[in-house]
Amino acid sequence: MKKLINEPADVVDEMLDGMVAAYPDRLRRLDGYEVLVRADAPVDGKVGIVSGGGSGHEPTHAGYIGDGMLDGAAAGEVFTSPTADQLNEMVKACDAGEGVLCVVKNYEGDVMNFETAAEMAEMEDVEVAQVVVDDDVAVEDSLYTSGRRGVCGTILVHKAAGAKAAEGADLTEVQRVAEKVVDNVGTMGMALTSCVTPEKGEPTFDLGEDELELGIGIHGEPGTERADMMSADEITEHLTEKVLADLDLDSGQEVVTIVNGMGGTPMMELFVVNKRLQELMDDHDLVVHDAWVGDYMTSLDMMGCSITVCAVDDELKELLDAPADTPALKVQ
Amino acid sequence: MKKLINEPADVVDEMLDGMVAAYPDRLRRLDGYEVLVRADAPVDGKVGIVSGGGSGHEPTHAGYIGDGMLDGAAAGEVFTSPTADQLNEMVKACDAGEGVLCVVKNYEGDVMNFETAAEMAEMEDVEVAQVVVDDDVAVEDSLYTSGRRGVCGTILVHKAAGAKAAEGADLTEVQRVAEKVVDNVGTMGMALTSCVTPEKGEPTFDLGEDELELGIGIHGEPGTERADMMSADEITEHLTEKVLADLDLDSGQEVVTIVNGMGGTPMMELFVVNKRLQELMDDHDLVVHDAWVGDYMTSLDMMGCSITVCAVDDELKELLDAPADTPALKVQ
Repeated sequence: MKKLINEPADVVDEMLDGMVAAYPDRLRRLDGYEVLVRADAPVDGKVGIVSGGGSGHEPTHAGYIGDGMLDGAAAGEVFTSPTADQLNEMVKACDAGEGVLCVVKNYEGDVMNFETAAEMAEMEDVEVAQVVVDDDVAVEDSLYTSGRRGVCGTILVHKAAGAKAAEGADLTEVQRVAEKVVDNVGTMGMALTSCVTPEKGEPTFDLGEDELELGIGIHGEPGTERADMMSADEITEHLTEKVLADLDLDSGQEVVTIVNGMGGTPMMELFVVNKRLQELMDDHDLVVHDAWVGDYMTSLDMMGCSITVCAVDDELKELLDAPADTPALKVQ
Repeated sequence: MKKLINEPADVVDEMLDGMVAAYPDRLRRLDGYEVLVRADAPVDGKVGIVSGGGSGHEPTHAGYIGDGMLDGAAAGEVFTSPTADQLNEMVKACDAGEGVLCVVKNYEGDVMNFETAAEMAEMEDVEVAQVVVDDDVAVEDSLYTSGRRGVCGTILVHKAAGAKAAEGADLTEVQRVAEKVVDNVGTMGMALTSCVTPEKGEPTFDLGEDELELGIGIHGEPGTERADMMSADEITEHLTEKVLADLDLDSGQEVVTIVNGMGGTPMMELFVVNKRLQELMDDHDLVVHDAWVGDYMTSLDMMGCSITVCAVDDELKELLDAPADTPALKVQ
């Protein structure tokens, strides 16, 4: 499988330098670390918000660094957790004395290394709080997790917590709204093709020309169910019903929806999925406050999509609508 | 080849409805036409700016409808020009009495149908001007064009002309800045894989596992040169040198660069390309005013990228930096 890379071992390092080269006024790399932070980090008087995880999910997470979202993002090797050392440096670089919230996707390596990093930073008098995102309704436990995996709903956590921090709220309040998103969001994904990692150079699972995989994660792990090829409408119905069954929302509930591309999916197809998704929201008497469509959390070159639904109240609507100015997400 | 679609014949229609469902406050579909316009079109006191072409290049063009960019975009079937009738309806819907600029990519069908549409609209007393974009430095003539093809540089035309129109400039002035971009921009693309159209369901050209195609267009047409697989750095050097040889810029010239993904390329790889591109700009003593990285003009699921360089003066810098608020491009 062909890729636009040089040496596979250099891809994360070169990607990060390429990001800073694209946004030199916005992003800064911590010397000697695979960590990007806001060019002006730490921001005086503001709680820091950081995230991180394996690479291969771009624009997650570094694409969300900026006003109203993240202060820093740590990039592990492809599909590999960042080290505790990296995470500790990031936390310290993003602390302006108001404390730092770590937004962690629920994978064992990520959770463990963020916990260690928090302990390290606390020994240097940085106040640290954590929120663990586990929005994937497909699995209870998985290859890499105890409990559900954290997937695309994480971007809504970044957005809401980032907006709250930008208001000048304290760490407890920022953590509270992050947890409110986690409590109200569900996601499920599917793949038409596996992804191919730079190191391995071939698909991480095999899928026939007439098959698709439901309940996939974002690390090339197989899904929960293999099915015969379906139409976009059928796929959308399957994913959406699973998410809604899990969330169990009241009629009239306001929601934000996301159709997320997995990296190799043409935007044309994401909009076809969104058409059916919005019809289903209407069928379920859900009121769509905002509908996002795009590549928010990818899995390299995987073809497929995930659907996220998040129930929102007035507070979350206000935070999700608040201004953000990052490379990958701008809200005006 | 698998896709997230329903019937291939319905994909453009469903995509457009899915776009309106995502952005109901921003976009409106003209009844009975595959045309999207600003929800508030025509905008009083402003020259209208419209574009269009075959579908399969999303977010081009409808993703750029909004404040500071386009007023309307016509979507032909996949890789097929919109009809003159469609284009005429769009032009009329976007005319507030100040006239309309049509931004046309240089393909014979597009040029012919836009010309017919302009004649039709002029018979109904709409003042129409056109600019034809032909930024592809790979070919002089091609399968679908007399002269060069119009590719990703078109987005800079949308941006500059849209900003000029938003200032309240008249049609002549808006056309002048659009042509200034056309005169100063060059692009060249490459592919690791062919794209697959919904109708055909298989690659439009064959490419071996150790081959790549240089000088590709955006409609699945083969490139100008087949080469053995190269590293990202080598590919970036090849494309960039071709573009710079064509532009023949003076040392110290300010430029805006674009690394554009063709639809199936992971963002990770685009940043790896951008790293080398920015080094090359430095080697050539070019001063990068802004560097764009993302999927701006795609070719369905094709893996590959194009590199665009546009020489900018103070006027173009100001127009490209001016605010824009569209689904696919926001400048604050």
